[in-house]
Amino acid sequence: MAASVTPPRGMRDFLPAEKARREHALGVIRGVYASHGFDEIETPVMEDASRLHAGLGGDNEKLAFAVMKRGITPDDLAAAAASGDALSLADLGLRYDLTVPLARFYATHRAALPPVFRSIQIAPVWRAERPQKGRYRQFVQCDIDIIGEPGALAELELLSATVATLDALGLTGCTIRLNDRRVLAGILSSWGVADDTRERALITIDKLDKIGTSGVASELRELGIVGEGADVAAELEALTTADWHLYDGVMPPPAWLDRDAYADLLALRETMPDATIEFDPTLVRGMGYYTGTIFEISHPDFGYSLGGGGRYDGMIGRFLGQDVPACGFSIGFERIVDLLAVRDEGRPRSVVLVYDPAVPPATLLNLKHELVASGTRVRFERRVKNARALFERVTADGFDAVANVTLETTDAASLSFRDLAA
Amino acid sequence: MAASVTPPRGMRDFLPAEKARREHALGVIRGVYASHGFDEIETPVMEDASRLHAGLGGDNEKLAFAVMKRGITPDDLAAAAASGDALSLADLGLRYDLTVPLARFYATHRAALPPVFRSIQIAPVWRAERPQKGRYRQFVQCDIDIIGEPGALAELELLSATVATLDALGLTGCTIRLNDRRVLAGILSSWGVADDTRERALITIDKLDKIGTSGVASELRELGIVGEGADVAAELEALTTADWHLYDGVMPPPAWLDRDAYADLLALRETMPDATIEFDPTLVRGMGYYTGTIFEISHPDFGYSLGGGGRYDGMIGRFLGQDVPACGFSIGFERIVDLLAVRDEGRPRSVVLVYDPAVPPATLLNLKHELVASGTRVRFERRVKNARALFERVTADGFDAVANVTLETTDAASLSFRDLAA
Repeated sequence: MAASVTPPRGMRDFLPAEKARREHALGVIRGVYASHGFDEIETPVMEDASRLHAGLGGDNEKLAFAVMKRGITPDDLAAAAASGDALSLADLGLRYDLTVPLARFYATHRAALPPVFRSIQIAPVWRAERPQKGRYRQFVQCDIDIIGEPGALAELELLSATVATLDALGLTGCTIRLNDRRVLAGILSSWGVADDTRERALITIDKLDKIGTSGVASELRELGIVGEGADVAAELEALTTADWHLYDGVMPPPAWLDRDAYADLLALRETMPDATIEFDPTLVRGMGYYTGTIFEISHPDFGYSLGGGGRYDGMIGRFLGQDVPACGFSIGFERIVDLLAVRDEGRPRSVVLVYDPAVPPATLLNLKHELVASGTRVRFERRVKNARALFERVTADGFDAVANVTLETTDAASLSFRDLAA
Repeated sequence: MAASVTPPRGMRDFLPAEKARREHALGVIRGVYASHGFDEIETPVMEDASRLHAGLGGDNEKLAFAVMKRGITPDDLAAAAASGDALSLADLGLRYDLTVPLARFYATHRAALPPVFRSIQIAPVWRAERPQKGRYRQFVQCDIDIIGEPGALAELELLSATVATLDALGLTGCTIRLNDRRVLAGILSSWGVADDTRERALITIDKLDKIGTSGVASELRELGIVGEGADVAAELEALTTADWHLYDGVMPPPAWLDRDAYADLLALRETMPDATIEFDPTLVRGMGYYTGTIFEISHPDFGYSLGGGGRYDGMIGRFLGQDVPACGFSIGFERIVDLLAVRDEGRPRSVVLVYDPAVPPATLLNLKHELVASGTRVRFERRVKNARALFERVTADGFDAVANVTLETTDAASLSFRDLAA
């Protein structure tokens, strides 16, 4: 047997305390989203390889884990060797996001779903990325999506459900950054960017956080996307520092600003008065399928996004053969779960019964049944010499009290519980 | 885009009603197991291929989905074609059970776990079986295991937690069939079966339900495992119809009955007076790794097992290099979830707001916040001409009441709810 017993590279085991924390957070998220009228669904972890590689997953398609066909013959292997195409041996793959499976699910089940379908998906996805701190090859995504609603009510329901969820998790005071793909299109037009290089230009602008305004300007020029005439660095600087309230009746908006998109963004801000909403005309959000509003949520205490999403009206149609408006939001669960304090609310009283090995199993089992029936969680521990070490261990495991079971113990009433220090 | 939009072969989507039923059942199972002192853990869905194919998974190893290495080169493909070994291109695989990952997990984390570790694993597994009714390629297993307890307390805690869980799910009156691998070894010895064909003989006996006593007898004879002398069919007939209470002090037990194993089984029966426990000396349970007690749970209303398990003292040692006693029980979740009635207990009041499209989104959102804050689940539906069809649909979706939102609506108090017939 192999000496190494670690999980596969970039993937994690969860021990009881961490698993409990994750399940608690997922329960809160499920509950708030459900109360906001969303319905949870589930799809298989695998999808057909052709669907995963249909161009809807962007760069993530390259990171998909491929699942081999069953019953591969020597001829199949020879053909793959001749063509050099390893993926010809794979017919399935592990999903790299929950959006491609949702589009497929909606196309499969549309007739059984309400006209406006609000879905919850809470499930793992897999990406063969180079493992690094905080980035894993298996991680949980929490997505909500509204399919079939073309109006701003979709964005509002997504944002308000998300803010409510983060509040319920104790992450109050989040900031929503808003933009619209139409605003980005206006900016690119003002720089003279041709339509066919627009997607590539957005990939560069998306790196603004990392390479700065001058880095973005250089890369766009090196790629030949913008000419010498446009002072992209200066314009980006102005965009990132602009106060969007200025355009709100105080001064005329700039020529590049798409009037319709901006009116929509203003309406969103008006309607969500409890949340801090910032207009960020340089916000891109990586995926190529976004068509309208895009948003990202961050918290002042943390230097990274806690989630984001946007409107992707063209995507469902790729599977359905008929366009359906859609808008979604994804919480960065792995980032959020590490920020949460462990909460004791609602946890049942938990006790440890330390037993003398001479006590008959029947007595132990009867005691356990009595305590469990009264709503108590029970763990048995065999008596050991070093009681202090045992107490410390079970305290760390979250138990509240401990009692000894001896040959004299008859029922739960005869147990003498000693509280463990919290 | 492909015209087919079904999930991959043998795998299922879950729509909201079915997903809710599954999550409800999983919540009950988690809760009861936790109150009985078990702790939930999680491992990645993939394990190293070498671990999945180390001989611990029995026939399931052949059914594992293989995950391809990333960055396969033309040389790799040529080498695979030359050797004919497709699996040389796979370094990972999807788990086919939760026992192999648990053994690996325990070996990785033993130092951080209590001396007797009671684990819960509730997670999907994958097997590339020929899809058929009630058999899927992705399905959920619910396992509890006790690692580090050599005595019968482990079996008792597993059985009592499982019976309590099935009770909580409404499946009262289950029957536990018990046997011990040592009893089977005694029977095989009495038939003159050689040690090195014992495992093969058990595979045949395991088919008793399907091929009957004469089928088992023929197959054992054809395989040369038993000689002409033994009347296996008659002895199997006697074994399957025997009343085990007879051996309990009334008449002397047969020569083949392992006295130690039988004493252990009697003690288990004594200690679990609330459950119906039957001795079945022909019970095998497929896996080769069982070493002692084996058990299976069934319900009089259903002609199939609802779960089973047993003691597998040798297995953890395969990863740890040191033997550790272990015993586990697995609930057949996919079978059980179909038997459950949908329960309304604990479900929040759910209402539908049917809105006039002229109502501003801000008004709708404020109404929703008001209702959600009072513990109500809210779904919006746009006003349609055929209100009756809408009412029927949302009634089927589990909603309790409906109210119209018009331009006159100001707050939740001004809504007039109409109850939907259940």
